Amino acid sequence: MRLEKFRVFFLLLALSIISCDQESKRDKYDSGKGEMLVRIAAIEIEPNYLKEYIAILKEEAEASVRLEPGVICIYPMFQKENPTQIRLLEIYANKEAYASHLKTPHFKHYKETTLEMVKDLRLIDMEAIDKEIMPIIFTKLK
Amino acid sequence: MRLEKFRVFFLLLALSIISCDQESKRDKYDSGKGEMLVRIAAIEIEPNYLKEYIAILKEEAEASVRLEPGVICIYPMFQKENPTQIRLLEIYANKEAYASHLKTPHFKHYKETTLEMVKDLRLIDMEAIDKEIMPIIFTKLK
Repeated sequence: MRLEKFRVFFLLLALSIISCDQESKRDKYDSGKGEMLVRIAAIEIEPNYLKEYIAILKEEAEASVRLEPGVICIYPMFQKENPTQIRLLEIYANKEAYASHLKTPHFKHYKETTLEMVKDLRLIDMEAIDKEIMPIIFTKLK
Repeated sequence: MRLEKFRVFFLLLALSIISCDQESKRDKYDSGKGEMLVRIAAIEIEPNYLKEYIAILKEEAEASVRLEPGVICIYPMFQKENPTQIRLLEIYANKEAYASHLKTPHFKHYKETTLEMVKDLRLIDMEAIDKEIMPIIFTKLK
């Protein structure tokens, strides 16, 4: 019972600290810098290159999310029935974050090495219907 | 400086507690219950109903994510250039979580009230390329 109280205490304390941390992080990217950028990238890959492409994409997505505070989400998937059809959900804090992403070594490496593997690429600008839902979604993930 | 040390200490402590909490939550939904279900729903809406449809969808997505531990993500968007084209990124902990979602009052309400608003519906099964990327995405969001 006492342990439970400690857990709750530390959790509340921690959440407030984390919340502060993220407040300052978001300030850096959001304030006065306009809207979040949400996009679905629809990419078709040459079948022969699929395995190689996926390895490079995975590395690039991971590095972007890990290293760039303005890259909120790059979530890569492929269609189960047609694995050469790749889809990415991309969320950037704002236009500046996206512009800065294009200049990173990991993005440049991805772009250069996969240029010939990509058969088709469509970038579809999206608008999130519920901007408030994200915090809830991501508290559910490890 | 001392404050900084405290912040780090509490952060680490908190993260380990949160991690434990989520471990047990996942156990409940993942262990022995198979793979996560990832899907893009591509929905076209009758233009006259768009505003009404979006309001109902927003409510349904929010309730699903908030109330159902097995609904990891329902992220609704529309195409900026063609707002009647709705896309949802849906992630369920497993098949059981999805089956249970279909039985909820909020899903049933959504399905019944929007039936005539939906012009076209395609459910595209996806596979996440990097299952490890989620934890990083989560730490970046409030």
